[in-house]
Amino acid sequence: MELKFKPIGVVHSPFKKIEDIQTKKYANAQGFDSIKGELEIFKEYEAGLKDTEGFSHLIVLYAFHKSKGFKLHTKPFLDEKLRGVFSTRSPHRPNPIGLTIVKIIERKGNVLKVGGMDMIEGTPILDIKPYTPRDQKSPLNLGWLEDKIR
Amino acid sequence: MELKFKPIGVVHSPFKKIEDIQTKKYANAQGFDSIKGELEIFKEYEAGLKDTEGFSHLIVLYAFHKSKGFKLHTKPFLDEKLRGVFSTRSPHRPNPIGLTIVKIIERKGNVLKVGGMDMIEGTPILDIKPYTPRDQKSPLNLGWLEDKIR
Repeated sequence: MELKFKPIGVVHSPFKKIEDIQTKKYANAQGFDSIKGELEIFKEYEAGLKDTEGFSHLIVLYAFHKSKGFKLHTKPFLDEKLRGVFSTRSPHRPNPIGLTIVKIIERKGNVLKVGGMDMIEGTPILDIKPYTPRDQKSPLNLGWLEDKIR
Repeated sequence: MELKFKPIGVVHSPFKKIEDIQTKKYANAQGFDSIKGELEIFKEYEAGLKDTEGFSHLIVLYAFHKSKGFKLHTKPFLDEKLRGVFSTRSPHRPNPIGLTIVKIIERKGNVLKVGGMDMIEGTPILDIKPYTPRDQKSPLNLGWLEDKIR
């Protein structure tokens, strides 16, 4: 069984490569809050953006388009030990789909200006969803990540 | 440009069809918290689940496999007006990918028992990610959804 998806847009970001993002500088929970970027949705999908501007936060699903292959045990850049890939946010995963929650600054037609940018320039966008109270979870246990980011 | 993905597992759920889920009964933020189910990860990917059990919550990405086509303006089941599809969590979207955050109850080998199940039986799983403080956002504006779920 194979599932086929087509990008609905493209990311514009100050980050040009993955190494710009994977640094300890951004490791804490607010790390990317001040980084701004744009989500350019292709014109044919622009009508689907109606009403998004009423929300403060959007979930962005995208392709880790620079990812080549994966290992089920992987060393996160924040850790020294091998971890199960599904316990990490590594771009190198069986299905290289990324997820970031951004804050809407402004919508201009088919372009959303957002804060919290942690994607690289040219990232293909797969979907945009509203972030709702159902997506707010607490309290959290963070496993291996616990003492890396607090 | 076409992106191809393969399921890494399958959902087991008390819900058998989409109408079981889309009812006002579950509309509030805690609606599905008491609903339990299982994420069966195929044996070939089981090693990737290492360390997931240290986390309290996981993000599940999956295919809305019963979705057929989409409209850019759609009437959410909670509303009477047409809304932009990207301001809804409708399964009928350009790329029919769903996202749910579940609570881990227990892992047994390649099976995760979880709470917060809002997927239907047989849903193909695309990815599992740890839910981290970066995914906790507040305060929220909820646009058209504001007076539907509070």
